[in-house]
Amino acid sequence: MQAYVDFVMELDRLKGVTRKVKPIGLDRYENSAEHSWQIALLAASLAHLAEEKVDVSRVVAMLLVHDVGEIDTGDAIVFAEGGWEERKAAEYEAVKRIFGHLPEDRGAPFLALWREFEAGETADARFANAVDRAMPALLNLANHGQSWRENGIAFERVVARIGPPINAGCPALWAYMLPQLEIAREQGWFGA
Amino acid sequence: MQAYVDFVMELDRLKGVTRKVKPIGLDRYENSAEHSWQIALLAASLAHLAEEKVDVSRVVAMLLVHDVGEIDTGDAIVFAEGGWEERKAAEYEAVKRIFGHLPEDRGAPFLALWREFEAGETADARFANAVDRAMPALLNLANHGQSWRENGIAFERVVARIGPPINAGCPALWAYMLPQLEIAREQGWFGA
Repeated sequence: MQAYVDFVMELDRLKGVTRKVKPIGLDRYENSAEHSWQIALLAASLAHLAEEKVDVSRVVAMLLVHDVGEIDTGDAIVFAEGGWEERKAAEYEAVKRIFGHLPEDRGAPFLALWREFEAGETADARFANAVDRAMPALLNLANHGQSWRENGIAFERVVARIGPPINAGCPALWAYMLPQLEIAREQGWFGA
Repeated sequence: MQAYVDFVMELDRLKGVTRKVKPIGLDRYENSAEHSWQIALLAASLAHLAEEKVDVSRVVAMLLVHDVGEIDTGDAIVFAEGGWEERKAAEYEAVKRIFGHLPEDRGAPFLALWREFEAGETADARFANAVDRAMPALLNLANHGQSWRENGIAFERVVARIGPPINAGCPALWAYMLPQLEIAREQGWFGA
């Protein structure tokens, strides 16, 4: 049992990994643990609108573990340029270490889900990635572009970076979001 | 799609519902969103040790929604005396409202999971309740009894309140925890 407790105490550190977006109405940045919870429920509610049929429980599990590597590396904004491969290698070392607390037959499925999310090649992973990419933009749309403005992220860069993965995994979601993003541009909610 | 976005923005408020325990090493109280994430993963890793065979994906989904009612009511410490029925009735009104943003065939399953957790009568719900009750005590064991000391909660009260549900859902977990709690008592980590 100590192994499981060590594992969940290690997970606890994800509550201290901050992202660039703020929860609505709160004067602090969100952390990767609460973000993971929120997108798991968004995915569970939207799964019937995925581009291809998905296994909801696999998608939920994937989203619950997808950011665990940040426990060692911290969060990087999706618009960061360069260093992505080194970063992903470091996250992979982190998840191997963290899931390594568990007995092999318990840790290996979590590690496989993490890798599947990162590879983005299955229907489940594409949908999970779509939801993960959509959520900070949805928060920004409700937050007057808070993290776009703070980080100088232009409309074109947002659309180029999140449009293809959201559209690939959940076209209905992207069809909803693009006009909202265009309205946000007119309102000056993006960086230069 | 607007209905799903309204739903997830409503969920966002759970990030602002604070509990009595602090994440390890952080000088703030944890919130119910990150707590829900953490216990979902603890349950997923421990499910094979449940008292009866459980459906992991149902347990995970149950834990992801179990605190959503606190969006309207706030968190109440499990040791609060009295007012429990009124509180649960208020939470039920809250979850009906929040899941009511979704189309009926999407919202109803979430509501059913929430009610099943509260009723605690199925194997899945008993295991989910065990994990939910265990987690703050595990954090306190790692935190020198922070919330027990801050709220004046005695050893006997903790054992009486969390022992039966943890033992009913996951006896191996309670068998591990009880000796740890006894050591914590010797170290003076409980309130009077």
